[in-house]
Amino acid sequence: MEETEQLFAYFNELMDTGAYIKLKEELNDENPVNLAEYFEELTAEKQLFIFRLLTKDMAAEVFSYMDNDTQEHIVHSITDREVRNIVDEMFLDDTVDFLEEAPANLVKKVLRNTDAETRALINRFLNYPENSAGSLMTIEFVKLHGAMTVEEAMRQIKLTGTDKETIYTCYVINDYRKLIGVVPLRTLICAKDEERVQDLMEEDVVSVCTTDDQEEVAHIFKKYNWMALPVTDKEERLVGIITVDDIVDVIDQETTEDMEKMAALLPSDEEYLKTPVLKLAKNRIVWLCVLMISGTLSSMVISRYDALLASTVVLSSFITIITGTGGNAGSQASTMIIRGMALGEIQVKDALRVIWKELRVGLICGVILGAVNMLRLTLFSSDTGFLVDLTVSLSMAAVVVLSKSIGCILPILAKVLKVDPAMMAGPVISTLVDALALMIYFHIASLLLF
Amino acid sequence: MEETEQLFAYFNELMDTGAYIKLKEELNDENPVNLAEYFEELTAEKQLFIFRLLTKDMAAEVFSYMDNDTQEHIVHSITDREVRNIVDEMFLDDTVDFLEEAPANLVKKVLRNTDAETRALINRFLNYPENSAGSLMTIEFVKLHGAMTVEEAMRQIKLTGTDKETIYTCYVINDYRKLIGVVPLRTLICAKDEERVQDLMEEDVVSVCTTDDQEEVAHIFKKYNWMALPVTDKEERLVGIITVDDIVDVIDQETTEDMEKMAALLPSDEEYLKTPVLKLAKNRIVWLCVLMISGTLSSMVISRYDALLASTVVLSSFITIITGTGGNAGSQASTMIIRGMALGEIQVKDALRVIWKELRVGLICGVILGAVNMLRLTLFSSDTGFLVDLTVSLSMAAVVVLSKSIGCILPILAKVLKVDPAMMAGPVISTLVDALALMIYFHIASLLLF
Repeated sequence: MEETEQLFAYFNELMDTGAYIKLKEELNDENPVNLAEYFEELTAEKQLFIFRLLTKDMAAEVFSYMDNDTQEHIVHSITDREVRNIVDEMFLDDTVDFLEEAPANLVKKVLRNTDAETRALINRFLNYPENSAGSLMTIEFVKLHGAMTVEEAMRQIKLTGTDKETIYTCYVINDYRKLIGVVPLRTLICAKDEERVQDLMEEDVVSVCTTDDQEEVAHIFKKYNWMALPVTDKEERLVGIITVDDIVDVIDQETTEDMEKMAALLPSDEEYLKTPVLKLAKNRIVWLCVLMISGTLSSMVISRYDALLASTVVLSSFITIITGTGGNAGSQASTMIIRGMALGEIQVKDALRVIWKELRVGLICGVILGAVNMLRLTLFSSDTGFLVDLTVSLSMAAVVVLSKSIGCILPILAKVLKVDPAMMAGPVISTLVDALALMIYFHIASLLLF
Repeated sequence: MEETEQLFAYFNELMDTGAYIKLKEELNDENPVNLAEYFEELTAEKQLFIFRLLTKDMAAEVFSYMDNDTQEHIVHSITDREVRNIVDEMFLDDTVDFLEEAPANLVKKVLRNTDAETRALINRFLNYPENSAGSLMTIEFVKLHGAMTVEEAMRQIKLTGTDKETIYTCYVINDYRKLIGVVPLRTLICAKDEERVQDLMEEDVVSVCTTDDQEEVAHIFKKYNWMALPVTDKEERLVGIITVDDIVDVIDQETTEDMEKMAALLPSDEEYLKTPVLKLAKNRIVWLCVLMISGTLSSMVISRYDALLASTVVLSSFITIITGTGGNAGSQASTMIIRGMALGEIQVKDALRVIWKELRVGLICGVILGAVNMLRLTLFSSDTGFLVDLTVSLSMAAVVVLSKSIGCILPILAKVLKVDPAMMAGPVISTLVDALALMIYFHIASLLLF
């Protein structure tokens, strides 16, 4: 990203030396994504100054790439007339009436750039559930009719193409706006002028419904490597399309959500640095409390064996190493299963294969860890005694097998129960494993030491 | 996915009833991705039978979507002539993908059946580092010259377009094959026939080098929402392009790798169900061993306080609840920071802001957890005594603050030291926090109880 920094330095220089005409020229020639980044580095006053050097359509485009703060600042500072100009250029108005008419690609960009509350409002008004195909789609796409010749189709694309989000995949509809086919621009270009669209189009079209979840949409894109996917309403009329570049954002968003759940966090759409401390604390305290209280289970197990611990205090020094290893072993298994399910590589029907696999992996890891531990204790802590060493090592092996099994079963079970498998990750697994691991440990200790 | 199952049942029925002509027709009309999935369900003999019903180009396309095992079986079974047909039809990057995974005898069989030129190209591709831009790119793209008119350019695209991976972004080169501009097909289509490509092209082209890492490439795609990105060699000559559909796979792959590292697993490209048990065990045992041995630290801390524990056995029952909560609090913080850095939302320069944020979040969470714990102990375990309750609750609060701080500092520190921040996640943080948490706990206990 050093190139953009050089660019920004150049702009700053032009600004400082008063070369405003040159600056205006250079700015309007620049990539709008880079310009939006430039705004983030400017003081509030300079932001406004630079913004006013942009042409109407450049201003609108740059605006759509800016971060919230800059957008808010700009809208806050400019005149109503200027706001109207941007909104006109972006096909967007603050009024929902207008949003309903506006091209969806900009709606989407605004949705992405508004706070959660506003987004929820807009989404409700647009009647599409959040994170649904409807909220992702754009309504600016190329519609053709089957009876058109290639020449007619190309003429229409030429005429209307500049306002469309993509012209590279064209959709064929009948008189009732029902989707009947899809034809890539590539096919039209390589075809003869007099051929008919209906003879060139692919009739077997995969489409999604406005209410489908974005995760499902992402799965279809990944499977077929498409550039765009048509969206239909309940009556199978074509209402919009989703393009692959938006799917990239969806994938990131879904993965972040999974990771947050896996780390016992309430998922949040906001960037870390822009989230207030109280909100961050709120997203964390819920699970921390639940897990802490669940941890009482382990305390109870330990309390039950206090006589054992009082007589052989050294046993307590291995508590964390056993629960820790169990937690780690379980997290490894659950992470692989959760990720495999998210990528569609593991299905519920694979449950038995998975469990059988984890049992064997658990056995191998358990035996090795037990052996390493036995060796370590024998060599380096001679004061513990053979039976304690054996207790710890046997427990270690048993706990690893158990943890791997629990780690693979719980995410699958969650899926069966229609709970997000990502919930059954490290922290939850560890808390559960802790109590069981201690029971195994103390039980083996009771058997061997008394 | 029920639709595809119905489809497969239909194919099977046609095959069983001997309706081969109908079957051939239906197969060649089907989506190649679905067909590739169908192959995975067939026996080896039937795979070959079905494969030979496909037309040349369909066979090549289906082949490129198959999993490794099926590909290998097919190449192994078909004649040299058939191999030649497939390789001729396939995009070069798909051939290379296959060769990278294939056993040597099959590699030989394929290379034997390609012309010298393709073979030279393949060899060059095989030399690009794994996960580099060079290994991702395709060489089938549209090259134009600046002096061409739009009419000439469109004619060239029409003539050569069917063999190109994408025709929607065209690249302009000079006589030395240096990249000088980029022009979307959209611009060409909406322009007048006599306009020159050099007047329409965008000269300010972002490109990557063959040796750049794929993660960097993915970042550029995400930032600019592009459909394709040009790849140049060290001499800045245009050698290939990368298309966005390949980036979707890269993003998934990089995220999986991050998640695996975060769960203390050695990262692996293979699908879980296809990975042998021994390989799975190997990927896990390394970190399990390292963490188990690091866990000795906690054991040492506990041993040091054995007199304290012997006199107040009840203290040991809170060990896991304190270390567990610390681990969870630390994992939450580190997950947010690791993900934020992976998405480019958090930079090293934000370190102080992050630490200040986590300190405050830690304080809020710590105080709440301490209070809840105090309440819980006072109400439900009256036998522990006020001072023990206070010890546990104070420790809880202090441990949470400490864990949050460590959880946010370590990933940033890793980044500074050029280590992957994903290493500094749950398991490593927990192991470290365990020892420190116990020191805090026993220290407070010593102060309050004696």
